[in-house]
Amino acid sequence: MGERVYLDWNATAPLRSEARAAMAAAMELVGNPSSVHAEGRAARGLVERARAQVARALGAEGADIVFTSGATEAAALALAGRDLSAAPVEHDAVRAWTDGALTVGADGGVVVPDPARACLQLANSETGIVQELPAGLAVSDLTQGFGKIPFAFNWLGVEMGFVSAHKLGGPKGIGALVIRQGTELAAQIRGGGQEMGRRAGTENLIGIAGFGAAAEAAQRDLAAGVWDRVSEIRNILEKTLDAAADMTISVGKGNIRLPNTLCLATPGWKGETQVMQMDLAGFAISAGSACASGKARRSDVLGAMGYDAATAQGAIRVSLGPGVAEQDVLRLAEAWLKQYRRFEARAA
Amino acid sequence: MGERVYLDWNATAPLRSEARAAMAAAMELVGNPSSVHAEGRAARGLVERARAQVARALGAEGADIVFTSGATEAAALALAGRDLSAAPVEHDAVRAWTDGALTVGADGGVVVPDPARACLQLANSETGIVQELPAGLAVSDLTQGFGKIPFAFNWLGVEMGFVSAHKLGGPKGIGALVIRQGTELAAQIRGGGQEMGRRAGTENLIGIAGFGAAAEAAQRDLAAGVWDRVSEIRNILEKTLDAAADMTISVGKGNIRLPNTLCLATPGWKGETQVMQMDLAGFAISAGSACASGKARRSDVLGAMGYDAATAQGAIRVSLGPGVAEQDVLRLAEAWLKQYRRFEARAA
Repeated sequence: MGERVYLDWNATAPLRSEARAAMAAAMELVGNPSSVHAEGRAARGLVERARAQVARALGAEGADIVFTSGATEAAALALAGRDLSAAPVEHDAVRAWTDGALTVGADGGVVVPDPARACLQLANSETGIVQELPAGLAVSDLTQGFGKIPFAFNWLGVEMGFVSAHKLGGPKGIGALVIRQGTELAAQIRGGGQEMGRRAGTENLIGIAGFGAAAEAAQRDLAAGVWDRVSEIRNILEKTLDAAADMTISVGKGNIRLPNTLCLATPGWKGETQVMQMDLAGFAISAGSACASGKARRSDVLGAMGYDAATAQGAIRVSLGPGVAEQDVLRLAEAWLKQYRRFEARAA
Repeated sequence: MGERVYLDWNATAPLRSEARAAMAAAMELVGNPSSVHAEGRAARGLVERARAQVARALGAEGADIVFTSGATEAAALALAGRDLSAAPVEHDAVRAWTDGALTVGADGGVVVPDPARACLQLANSETGIVQELPAGLAVSDLTQGFGKIPFAFNWLGVEMGFVSAHKLGGPKGIGALVIRQGTELAAQIRGGGQEMGRRAGTENLIGIAGFGAAAEAAQRDLAAGVWDRVSEIRNILEKTLDAAADMTISVGKGNIRLPNTLCLATPGWKGETQVMQMDLAGFAISAGSACASGKARRSDVLGAMGYDAATAQGAIRVSLGPGVAEQDVLRLAEAWLKQYRRFEARAA
């Protein structure tokens, strides 16, 4: 078996070298950012530099960045107790606090009658479908879009958004809520007055440093067009499979999508089976979001889009990143088509 | 100015080399612990190994360890919505959810009439005073005791306890709630089903790896008697200052204390002033807990123990660790006494 190929970047991206270096430097600082002595001030300085890096990368200069333990906590901070509406295509971290009442149109777009009372994702983790965010939207899950497609929080017309470091090459366990300056927000995790009273607890210094560096590097790569090449490679994979797998649907093909995501549904061929087969062949892909992996309840994303159960259960996600070469996806295509033909023969 | 001396270990401890190595190794893993492919399983394995390390270090084999973003989040998970009683000597992360009604006896011990409805710290961060935990206690803040004094969660007779990695040489931003197996606990951060449904969000892989390694190393050092030497050095400092500073009270001197903590109160000489003077002289110490630093509201710890405002405001905390030498504390004593004599002359 050759070298393994990681094609599950939407679940988590490899740690960037810039993040690694920033984290190693942060490990040398001994202080608690809340301490007033020199060691504490040095740690505080690092937190605030990283906050500025994240704000710049988000196009959120002047907005407030509240560091959290990840997008899931940030979602809870933005959504808990607010009874906002959202569609079933949202991540479980959003669905936990919203009603799931919004519907998905035939064009893949979520219909948002009252943006001020709604939460809508910028991009879907499973299909890559990008939503047009309506002006005045209360909350947006920016997690999958951040670092992959250009946007500026300050121009989105959204009150709050949330992001995660590990989707763009930062460490897991750190994320942020970005909120328009002056928006009121009650802390859920209470105690010390960290994060301007919005989120207590000693700051994750090493994680924050890694997040700042990764966000800055991700923004630089995006501006340099790195994801255009990712998109080309994704399209090569899509065309290769389209041409050879008649029973397979490329979900979201007609939509504006993330440049790296390919969602392939083959009715009757379980996604979990395909994931295991590809894993044995040396490829890391997924069926649905990582958080939903191994759960009895399957993702509702494809169901909400109108696909039947057999199709939804036959979905896999291949998600690329800048480290993936054309050769890698062609090897995946070969391995996958080999299994596909076996499935086709059984199904015939 | 010579090399700086860090004497604020109760605010945060320097990162242990074992934690650094474990974190560097974790940086090499690309997978999301929730993913089912080989990369995901490797990440999951690392999380579970670290969980076992933390459980062993806590003497909590068989109990459930729920990883959180720190002790503050773990406190919220244990306490929010339960209306437990606690004393004003608790950390703000506990006080946020409890009534502050428990009183402190003349012997420094907190009086707990109904343990099943109470939260009590094992050791106080500011004075180092160690409490005798009553059997059947609902929740205990084990943060300052973990790694500094021997205890086994399984023998404490406590339902839940919480700890933080960075107090014992792990990274900031990771902690745990430890609960007797089978105790019901509703998640506050919801979404993905991580941590057996008790705490959603992609796991802080690097932080968890660092926590596990640090906890194991801390337990090994504790068993080897490393903190006995820390205690000796603390006592040398205490004796040196006792002999030379008549106006200064060593708070908690008659109590069972953490081996590393010295709380000195000099009525009329503000703690913040002392911290700044020592910072300029090259020593990192604190006035109250780090979280309370720079806040208008001062810590209530000394007030709750019956000290008047002038004494409470004149308190500093010197907290040592295994890296601190006798020479270091004698240099601090010299620098502090120089300022003390000036204060004494002004006060006369």
